[in-house]
Amino acid sequence: MKCALVRPDGITVHTERHPTNAARGPEAVVATILDVAEGLAGKARADGRTPVAAGIVVPGVVDEARGVAVWSANVGFRDVPVRDLVAARLGLPTALGHDVRAGGIAEARLGAGRGAGHVLFVAIGTGIAAAHVVDGTASIGAHGAAGEIGHILVRPGGPRCGCGRPGCLEAVASAAAVGRRYADLAGAPATAAEVAERAAAGEPLAAQVWEETVEALADGFATGQALFDVATIVVGGGLAQAGARLLDPLRAALRDRMTFHREPRLVAAALGDEAGCLGAALLALDAAGGVPDTMEME
Amino acid sequence: MKCALVRPDGITVHTERHPTNAARGPEAVVATILDVAEGLAGKARADGRTPVAAGIVVPGVVDEARGVAVWSANVGFRDVPVRDLVAARLGLPTALGHDVRAGGIAEARLGAGRGAGHVLFVAIGTGIAAAHVVDGTASIGAHGAAGEIGHILVRPGGPRCGCGRPGCLEAVASAAAVGRRYADLAGAPATAAEVAERAAAGEPLAAQVWEETVEALADGFATGQALFDVATIVVGGGLAQAGARLLDPLRAALRDRMTFHREPRLVAAALGDEAGCLGAALLALDAAGGVPDTMEME
Repeated sequence: MKCALVRPDGITVHTERHPTNAARGPEAVVATILDVAEGLAGKARADGRTPVAAGIVVPGVVDEARGVAVWSANVGFRDVPVRDLVAARLGLPTALGHDVRAGGIAEARLGAGRGAGHVLFVAIGTGIAAAHVVDGTASIGAHGAAGEIGHILVRPGGPRCGCGRPGCLEAVASAAAVGRRYADLAGAPATAAEVAERAAAGEPLAAQVWEETVEALADGFATGQALFDVATIVVGGGLAQAGARLLDPLRAALRDRMTFHREPRLVAAALGDEAGCLGAALLALDAAGGVPDTMEME
Repeated sequence: MKCALVRPDGITVHTERHPTNAARGPEAVVATILDVAEGLAGKARADGRTPVAAGIVVPGVVDEARGVAVWSANVGFRDVPVRDLVAARLGLPTALGHDVRAGGIAEARLGAGRGAGHVLFVAIGTGIAAAHVVDGTASIGAHGAAGEIGHILVRPGGPRCGCGRPGCLEAVASAAAVGRRYADLAGAPATAAEVAERAAAGEPLAAQVWEETVEALADGFATGQALFDVATIVVGGGLAQAGARLLDPLRAALRDRMTFHREPRLVAAALGDEAGCLGAALLALDAAGGVPDTMEME
């Protein structure tokens, strides 16, 4: 769990990390969230600050209107009313959000998408997920499940995705998929970062895997642009750490696919792994109506 | 041009149709729009009504905020300030919108998506386009080009689309594509409606083409659902006239593709080819702040 005390101007004044230990079961994880949140509020007070709102973000399917974590596979949450539990413990206005949507809000308001108005934030790591952010607000969807760009079809009949379908973008172009594909071809394991590096050094198999990855991402991003028509696509997550090795060929491949559409700016995320935490702070501030001091955790 | 006088409660009290004659060039088409709009306002007054707002919707890329038809291929519009031209001629608040987005607004507010909150309206005719409507408002995008579901990749290396790319949904599953595919296989032309009918009658080639169409649409709709997470998908346009012959297998094929996502309701459009005209009326009413009498054209 990444936690922070954040001022309303977006300045982080304190950070903490705590192990989630998901194997303990969802009740224990919720208990830890409540304890850590209370501890953060106490730390703020001890430092002479007044905590005014709390923001929590989790992965999976999140019903932000009801404040319920509907389904978070990695921590085993099923219909957990996280918002009300935290609000009751702390006595503070509390917002519950989705980790990638919160990251997208932070990148759109404070990071690489600042000023763009219409932003698609795509986080490429073990999985791939996106947040469509317009004027600083992320689309949530009818059931809290909008933005699942990792599960759009890009390669019919392609590798089977964790979701059960073949050919999803995530099954072809996530950092995990890049490593798997290279291991399949080369017979030896490698991380996505190593594949990017070897491709840049001219290793043919790595270059092939990297090109396949870029082509699949360009197909997925082009689909996103056809549907969302954004001004800026912000790429975050572990794979984005490849920097220009990813963004330069991806920008060219995306440009090739633009016909009637306007080409979006394609940029790397600016806030790194703090984006989710900052986004939680922004959601908390929104919930509290923009008051002077907040505390957040992810 | 489909034109109507519409009351604020959505009741159409008068309709007119006029030939566009696009071959005359964009200036002549604009002149006709202005003349027809003036005529409709006069007709309303002659009937003892007070026209209070005008709504115009056009196909292509529309910048609704500036009221500019950025690019409408079939009428040759390029950056035409339609809204201000109509407003100046009529002296009425005027809204310019996009035909499919306006149809989507009408279906979401008054038609088959009523009460759903989050609606994806997909018009399948010569082309395929969509409108994502949340709480009665359609997403426009950063450049007026959101919702182009016809141009998402569903069949890599597939038939070339009018936009220039291979494998777009529109190139595989529009009414025009269905007719072309059948003609290629059977060596004789047929409309999409005829293909649907022959497929239902058990003709093998028609059944094959129809199944390919349904599978491609299901792939495209599943991608839309992954990104938008709507409650209801409303299917309109010429192909929707196949009714249950389209919707029943499409619903089953879409259900097959739902993994983590919630399955949307899949329903036929309720307003037929009046949807765009009614949507123009709703945009006009929105522009005028919901006042008592309007006139619209599409």
